[in-house]
This record gives sequence, C-alpha cells and structure tokens, in this order.
Amino acid sequence: MKYYSFALLFLVSGFSFSQKGSGQDSAIIRQFFDEALVRGKSYEDLRSLCKGVGARLSGSAQAQMAVEWGKRKMETYGFDKIYLQPVMVPHWERGNKEAAWFQNSTGEIIQVDILALGGSIGTNGILKAEVIEFKSLDELKKATKASVQGKIVFLNQPMNPADIITFKAYGGCYGIRGQGAAESAKLGAVGVVIRSLALPEDHFPHTGSMYYEEGVSKIPAGALSTISSNELSQALSKGKITFIMEMDCRDFPDEPSFNVMGELTGSEKPNEVITIGGHLDSWDAGEGAHDDGAGIVHCLEALRILKVSGIKPKHTIRVVFFMNEENGNKGGHAYAKWAKQENQKQIAAVESDRGGFSPDGFECDGKEPFIQLIKGFAPLLAPYDLHHFEAGYGGVDISPLKQHYEGIPLFGFVPDSQRYFDFHHAASDVFESVNKRELELGCASMAAFVYLLDKSL
Amino acid sequence: MKYYSFALLFLVSGFSFSQKGSGQDSAIIRQFFDEALVRGKSYEDLRSLCKGVGARLSGSAQAQMAVEWGKRKMETYGFDKIYLQPVMVPHWERGNKEAAWFQNSTGEIIQVDILALGGSIGTNGILKAEVIEFKSLDELKKATKASVQGKIVFLNQPMNPADIITFKAYGGCYGIRGQGAAESAKLGAVGVVIRSLALPEDHFPHTGSMYYEEGVSKIPAGALSTISSNELSQALSKGKITFIMEMDCRDFPDEPSFNVMGELTGSEKPNEVITIGGHLDSWDAGEGAHDDGAGIVHCLEALRILKVSGIKPKHTIRVVFFMNEENGNKGGHAYAKWAKQENQKQIAAVESDRGGFSPDGFECDGKEPFIQLIKGFAPLLAPYDLHHFEAGYGGVDISPLKQHYEGIPLFGFVPDSQRYFDFHHAASDVFESVNKRELELGCASMAAFVYLLDKSL
Repeated sequence: MKYYSFALLFLVSGFSFSQKGSGQDSAIIRQFFDEALVRGKSYEDLRSLCKGVGARLSGSAQAQMAVEWGKRKMETYGFDKIYLQPVMVPHWERGNKEAAWFQNSTGEIIQVDILALGGSIGTNGILKAEVIEFKSLDELKKATKASVQGKIVFLNQPMNPADIITFKAYGGCYGIRGQGAAESAKLGAVGVVIRSLALPEDHFPHTGSMYYEEGVSKIPAGALSTISSNELSQALSKGKITFIMEMDCRDFPDEPSFNVMGELTGSEKPNEVITIGGHLDSWDAGEGAHDDGAGIVHCLEALRILKVSGIKPKHTIRVVFFMNEENGNKGGHAYAKWAKQENQKQIAAVESDRGGFSPDGFECDGKEPFIQLIKGFAPLLAPYDLHHFEAGYGGVDISPLKQHYEGIPLFGFVPDSQRYFDFHHAASDVFESVNKRELELGCASMAAFVYLLDKSL
Repeated sequence: MKYYSFALLFLVSGFSFSQKGSGQDSAIIRQFFDEALVRGKSYEDLRSLCKGVGARLSGSAQAQMAVEWGKRKMETYGFDKIYLQPVMVPHWERGNKEAAWFQNSTGEIIQVDILALGGSIGTNGILKAEVIEFKSLDELKKATKASVQGKIVFLNQPMNPADIITFKAYGGCYGIRGQGAAESAKLGAVGVVIRSLALPEDHFPHTGSMYYEEGVSKIPAGALSTISSNELSQALSKGKITFIMEMDCRDFPDEPSFNVMGELTGSEKPNEVITIGGHLDSWDAGEGAHDDGAGIVHCLEALRILKVSGIKPKHTIRVVFFMNEENGNKGGHAYAKWAKQENQKQIAAVESDRGGFSPDGFECDGKEPFIQLIKGFAPLLAPYDLHHFEAGYGGVDISPLKQHYEGIPLFGFVPDSQRYFDFHHAASDVFESVNKRELELGCASMAAFVYLLDKSL
C-alpha cells in the first residue's frame, strides 16, 4: 500500500499548489493553450497519420508505417529519449470477400451493409441459413437449442439513446459483440450478425473485437449497419428470412511490432515516470482518426508543448504510442511488464482514447486523494471549459500498470462523448471527422493536466 | 425598478425549490431528456426546415414558406394559441452575378471565393481596381486618403484562434464586416472585400450584415473565403495586385412578413409571459441549420416536450419564431412593442441562437438575483453535463424587450462554441452539419430550463 500513504500527502500539496503560485500556473497554462491554438502541430500531425499512413490494424504494413511515423515525429520534436519497444501482436485480416444479403419468402434479395467482427473466422464460401432475431444477449441465452440450431443469429440490440454519456450505452451493448458468437454457437447456430454498436441510423457498419470460447465451435460473426439492422428486423416481422453471407477474414501467426516511446527526462526524479499515451493501432475501416489518432496526437502535442514552453518536469514524462489496444492489448501489457523489470517507478498514467472532441475534463481511476487532487486543478482549468474532474476510468492501454504498481492512479482524458459512436470502428472515422479546434483544445488540456500532475506529485 | 424588487423574492424561492421537491424535479427533467432522445421530433423537424424550406432570408419566398412551416408545426403539436404577427422586413437579394478574381503584375488571373455582404450594393458591371490590404479596421482608419483613393480595400483580419470562446474572436473582427465599407468609402475606396469571419482555413466565404453611413458614399462589399484571403495576401506581399469583382445584389422595397408564435397558456398567471425563441430567417447561403434552425427547433421541441409531459406551467410559455434577426431585427422589435401594447407582463425571455452543439448551460443578462437563480438550477442539470450558469448575453431577438420591460431578465442558451464559426453564414451551414444527439440534448436542456424558470418565478 505504499502508494496510498504517498497519496495522502498529495491532498495537502494539491491544495497548497492551488493557493500558492496559481497566478504563475495560470499564465503557464494560458501559454500552453496559445501554443496549441496558434502555433499547434496537432492537426497536421493527425492529417499525416490518417492520410499518410491510413488505417493501421496490428500486424499490417500500415501499423509498421505508423511505428515509423511515430518515431520520426518524436525525433522531429527532439524528445530526450526515443525507444521502440518490441511486442508480438495478433494478426487478423479482413480479406477481400465481405458481403451479405437477406431474402424474404417471396424471393426478393436485399443487400446489407456488413463488416466482419475482428477475430472472426471466414464463412468458407457462401453461408446461407434461416436467420433468427434476439433483442439482447440475455434473450438469446434463454432460447432453446431447437429454435437456434442450424440458423444464423441476429442480435439486434440498439444502444440506449437515453444514456447521456454514450460510453454507458456502448457498455450496455458490448456483450452482443464480444460474446454473441460463443453464445450463439452453444445453441448450434452457424453464424451471427449483430446490430452495430452505433447511435446514428446510417449505412456504416462498425467492427470491433469478438471472442471465441474454448471448447465452443467457432462461427463467423459480422456487424450490420443500423439501417440494415432495421430493414432485416422489419422483414423478419413479416415472415421467415434467409440470410446469406460471405467473408474470408482469418487469423495469421502473430507478428513482431512495437510500442513507440519518447520522453522528457525528469529534472529531479528521472526514475519516477508519468506515462501518457494512446494507441497507435486502429481498426481497418476508416482512418482511426478519433480512435485513436486523436489520442496519439493529444499526447504527442502535449509533450511538444511542454518542451517548447521550456518546462523542466520534476519527473520523467513519457509519451507511449501503444500498439494493439484494439485486439489484444499486447502493447499495454508489454509496457507495464518492461517498466517493472527495469525498476522504473511508475507514479501515474494518463490515457486519451475517447476521441478528439471538445474537452470536458479528466477522470481518475485511483484512491480518493488522487480524485481530490484533480478536483483541485479545476479552478485553473475552468477558463478552458474543463469542468469534469471525477472518479472514473483511465484507459485500456495503461490498465496493466495496475498489476505491477499497486495503487498507481490512472487518469482518463474525457472529451464530449456525443458524437463518438457516429465514427467508432467505422469507415466514417476519418480525418475530416475531427475538428481542428476541438483537437487542439484537447492537446492543451493534456499538457496542462500533465504539468499540474508533475508539479503536485 | 419593479422587476428588481420582484427579483429579490426569486433568490429565496429559487433556493427553496432546489431543496424541496428536487427529487420530483429531477424525475421530471429525466423524463424531458428521455422524450427528446428516445421519442424526439427535433431532428426531423430540423430536416424539414432545412431541406423542405431551405435558406430563408427576410423578404424571400423561402422566408414565407418558413412562416407556413412554423405555423403548421405549432398546429400539429397542438399548442394553445398560435399567432402570426405581421412585421415589415427589409428585402435584399444577392442576384445572379457574383464572382471575383485577382490579377498579379505578370497578368496571371486567380479566381477567389466570394459572397456579397448582406445589404451591399452591386458593382454595376465589372469593378476593377488596385487592391490595398489592411490587417484591421484601426489600421485602415489610420491610412491616408491618397493611399486608398480609387482602390479596393482588403480587410484581412483573422479571428483570434487563442480566444477559447469563439464568439469573443468573432466580436473582435465584427467591425471589418459591419463598418468596413463606410470606413473605406470615407478614404475614397471604390469597393471593399473582407476576410470571412471564420476560423477554419477553407473555401467557404461567410456573409453577414454590413452597414452604410448616411452622407458616406455606398461601395460594394464582399467576403472572401479564408483560403482566398491567404492567397490574395500572399500575392500582395510580392507586388501590385488588381482586383476584379462583379456582384448584382441589391435592395428591394420592404416586404410584409410575420413572427410565428404559439404558447402553453399559464394555468395560474396567463398574462405573465415567459418568451422563448430563435430566429426563423437565415442568410441565403447554406440552409440556416445551426443559425438558427437549431434555435427554432430547440424552442419548438421544448414546448412540445412540456406539453406531452403534461406540464401545466404557472405562467404562459410562448415560443416565438422571430423574423429578420439577420438583417434588421424587425421581428424582435415588433414583438416587444406588441407585447407592451397588449399589456402583457413579460417576466423573462430565453433565446437560442448559438447553434445546435452540445449544451453547456445558460447565461443571464439580468440582475444578480437572476444569476443566482440559475446557478441554483445547476445541481439538477449537472447529470446532463450542463455546467455553465453565468452572467452573460441573452440574444438579439429578445433584446428589444429590455426597452419596454425594465429589469426583465434575458437568458441565452449556451452550447459548445468551438465549431460554430465553421458554418456561420456560409454554404456549409446545412442540416448535415448538425448532430442529432447534440440537437436533442439542446431541446431537453431548453425544456428543463424553462420548466425550472416557470416554477421559480
């Protein structure tokens, strides 16, 4: 529990810092925002990542290009140390064939928008079977084997639009994507398609990870656009429907890849590290602009801002571009393990992986004194409309640090969530979906938060 | 000062309401958000206004269609009383010819993106003259007549990207659009073009009102896109440039039009009115989606939500679709004058005219007790991320009420401002630029705010 007793000190130091020297801090933070908004590099950096590199699923050539992009960016900005940390990652490919249709009892054929879910097996030619609809994973679990056997399961659970924070609505549907295939296969289904985890009604299917269970047969799994889901459901309300799908996605052997890391070495405690990061990999649809190009650029630009502003952090501030958040989190695990083996003292970590929208604040996955600490930052950040400083979640990439560093506080950057699930894991997640000012404000917010954190710890 | 003494009572009642019955209020407000997000009409209403009616500048056939659209919507939703209030409005038309180029000393011709400013005279054929650049209105005012005489003035003042609230940056540049022509003409200029009041670098020129001064000659005035402005400025840094423009915009005689009004009549004090509104007219570029289709729909949907939720307001809640905010505010003036003549007691007014983005809160243009009153709403609205309850501005349409009702508090709905000047007065302000959830959250926020206001006053 060493971090907890350590943490109790923060409460005091946090408050004292907000009383003393806050005029100077206020001026420094204003300087960060000026740098981001007037002389910022973030928008062009995001453009080069999205347009110059493109979508970058683990194991792909694009992911390797993204590693080189990241290393070169850090070199250009003159960070103190730049590392490539080797990590083996899964390698799944969508393949070339990906299409689906449904056919009603009159023989009419309607094409649907489909994307294979990440990790799915292919259909091995054309798969054709009667389709049966369930409104949730629980409803599916209650079904009889006789009713599902030999069929394609259609899990048509909409995200709840009444949830104000869209991540909550996403969490409520996550099961149909993650466990849909395994639960359907247990009842003898031959395939599964889900309603995309998305809020708008449009033609974009949204992919994402799915998981098979040991001892349960593997069946192909895809996501339909919300409009296709509505059309299929409507057709099912009128009678029997045959579903036809072809996908040739498949797994390949794991591939070597890298986390990309660069830092400003601590001026007082170089072995005490504040990690900030996002994930460099993305799904293969779109360009990974909000997920998580924005997070990558938030952290890159934050470190650049600290450097050009002449800040000499007490602790080492290390930016990590994690590889493989989307389908394995191998980068996150490798980083935490490596840091521990190297006897680094990881004192805090901050992640940005919720898109490039207008900043609301930061959440803390940590003990009460850390939550109080960031609440103490609020007055200095209020002029920038940052107002959300609460207990909450850090991020997937930094979460393995908890296994190796008991009590380490993890922080998550929180932008406005309303538009995130318009783009998440879909072909619509392109550079043009990110607003320049919103992105820049996120970068400056990250710089300010890390600056205050370094000062307070 | 009768409103002030009246207001002092609110402070007390405001606090007591936030103590007592807040559990019930909390449930009612949750119901408003469910209605807006799950069964909302706002997005389809905005679609029909933008796509079914289109851009709707005062005096145009489209503006007349918008009046009919508004009346029909209010009838469909079954509001208690529906009025059309006659108002004479200016009638200016862009005409068919609108183009501009610049030519450098080698004779190369480069086309620029241009929109005539609202109210400008035309060029009466082709206008061709040397162009001279100024970085601000102040810089222009310091110039000599000899340097400007016979030239076209180019006012190239960028909005300040470092301003966090984009309306502040807009205010900083407003002079070049409003007074640019008059100030240029005083020095003998034959035309004026301004850098669009916009933050992104793109090809959209942004129009808006400009004003001539009595006794100063009228010269044609246009806005260039930010990219065209950069190109022209760049060319000017290399040598003399000739600017060529043709516009056949002109004024027509005033036209009859209408404010559209509908209400829920007060159950206890029907003659005491809370006015809520936005403006029905828009500039002729784009579809007036954020400016101010969103505001119209916020208020329409708020009243619909109150009605379907079975709320019986104490005071009359009247929604007003004001005509002619953009180039005259004739609707706003006519409404305030009419209300006074009818001996109505206007006790508060709320306007939405800052776009359809994620809601931040409300501002109060009124005395301290009213500011304290809305600060008291904060805990009930915090679950919806509403956090901004401050002194500030109400809106253009409701501002004439101040002349007739001393001390009346005016409130302005405040959404996130970051993207507003991507679209404002430009061809990019179309239905597709509005996010469904952001719009719906604004509607529910308006309903909740008006509900609390009615209860507290």
